[in-house]
Amino acid sequence: MSGNKTGDCRPIGVFDSGVGGLSVVRWLEQLLPGEDIVYFGDVGRVPYGTRSREVIHRYASEDLRFLADREVKLIVAACGTASSVIGPELIKKLPVPYTGVIQPTAAAAAAATQNGRVGIIGTAATIASGSFVRALGQLSPALQTVGRGCPLLVPLVENGYIDFENQVTRLVLQDYLRDIVDFGADTLILGCTHFPLLAPIIADLLGPGVTLIDSGLATARYAAKLLQTSGSQNPAKTGGRQQYYISEHTETFAATARLFLGHDIQAEFALAETPL
Amino acid sequence: MSGNKTGDCRPIGVFDSGVGGLSVVRWLEQLLPGEDIVYFGDVGRVPYGTRSREVIHRYASEDLRFLADREVKLIVAACGTASSVIGPELIKKLPVPYTGVIQPTAAAAAAATQNGRVGIIGTAATIASGSFVRALGQLSPALQTVGRGCPLLVPLVENGYIDFENQVTRLVLQDYLRDIVDFGADTLILGCTHFPLLAPIIADLLGPGVTLIDSGLATARYAAKLLQTSGSQNPAKTGGRQQYYISEHTETFAATARLFLGHDIQAEFALAETPL
Repeated sequence: MSGNKTGDCRPIGVFDSGVGGLSVVRWLEQLLPGEDIVYFGDVGRVPYGTRSREVIHRYASEDLRFLADREVKLIVAACGTASSVIGPELIKKLPVPYTGVIQPTAAAAAAATQNGRVGIIGTAATIASGSFVRALGQLSPALQTVGRGCPLLVPLVENGYIDFENQVTRLVLQDYLRDIVDFGADTLILGCTHFPLLAPIIADLLGPGVTLIDSGLATARYAAKLLQTSGSQNPAKTGGRQQYYISEHTETFAATARLFLGHDIQAEFALAETPL
Repeated sequence: MSGNKTGDCRPIGVFDSGVGGLSVVRWLEQLLPGEDIVYFGDVGRVPYGTRSREVIHRYASEDLRFLADREVKLIVAACGTASSVIGPELIKKLPVPYTGVIQPTAAAAAAATQNGRVGIIGTAATIASGSFVRALGQLSPALQTVGRGCPLLVPLVENGYIDFENQVTRLVLQDYLRDIVDFGADTLILGCTHFPLLAPIIADLLGPGVTLIDSGLATARYAAKLLQTSGSQNPAKTGGRQQYYISEHTETFAATARLFLGHDIQAEFALAETPL
């Protein structure tokens, strides 16, 4: 429960609508190997991306409360869809610092672009929310943006269509990326935590002139910076433990988690049912 | 509330986890144009196909209760996934006759096959449940079957990848249908109410030697027979009205409903929260 100059051993809390947030966990493991992590995956109510804004807001509030109740020192909404509906009215109720994926990812994209043209791909709900466009506009009003909802990419990733030569995924991506290419973006935000698994194919289709911004990496870096600034890093440099909770034990969770993390995990059942 | 020889004006109740059951409604409209229909689409909890069996059973129980409370004369579970978990323990609690999609579709396939080899495609949950295989085995123990879960077909249909020349859908189907072709099936059950929208492509890939069994048509025909046998048809021959309830107003519902029915509909919000 302490947060002082000698460090803070409480875990980092991370949630997502399902397994996608594990791409943030993977980067946290690499950047902050001494930190404990508590992960909540709302597998029982996935996908958020196709729900109404009101329902997503309620789910996000319940997910935040779930982690706040677990004595974490920082909460990360590792879900583009949830991040896009979490505003000041929820954040001010949290007892600890918070970050979603939108702000850190937009900041990384604004820093990366040379020609001021940024493309964004995400779930239909994330793109429709305009969250990335607003965040980019606040960072640098001169930036030009184009967004494209890509509703088939999550099912493709979750069904393992991620191999570099996969013709199905390539055809779908060619269609989705057409607007981005025509627009002349030199930077592309992968605005959904599933999309980094497709980064090699996306990079191949767009060529070396386009920088890909991995929302998992950008968010993990920002979380590390938040802990450093507040002096609440874990003094341990290695040996961080992860605890996983999921709201439904599905047939496919273990296999999909392995796709994201590259190793097996054990998850406990838990529900997020109480709003903030 | 009457069920006598002069007919029964109560509506037919139909439910699905989302929009797929509209493919049964479309056939009911054509076969029984005088019947009223009450439809419940559990859009707020779709997809059922990736949930655990226990959760699907609870949702199905709530959906059955929702329709039973609306004074219907027959309940149709127009959802392969829900049908596969609805057993005698639920059916005996219903005040009116019931049919799922499994039995009528299996019966149509058993009647159609010449070489005794039947293929089945469905959601992962439907195939894993073995429901079609069991139903076929009970109808005719000599039948040989092969099943294939096709988790990407629902997202493809719901995102409009249904045009005859669609290369993405063709590639995905070629992969899914390989086992069916190798097996030498002469009959293929489209064991998910979304799949009839892909029937032209499937027929083209499999050729004229394979008969496709549309679960929507088989189920609607069986429902018509149930009403005829019990003398509870609506005396009207035309002018049936449809009433639609959905458990969430999503951006995409109206467009997807149009794909299935070929016309626009208005839907009211309602939740199914009480089990049988």
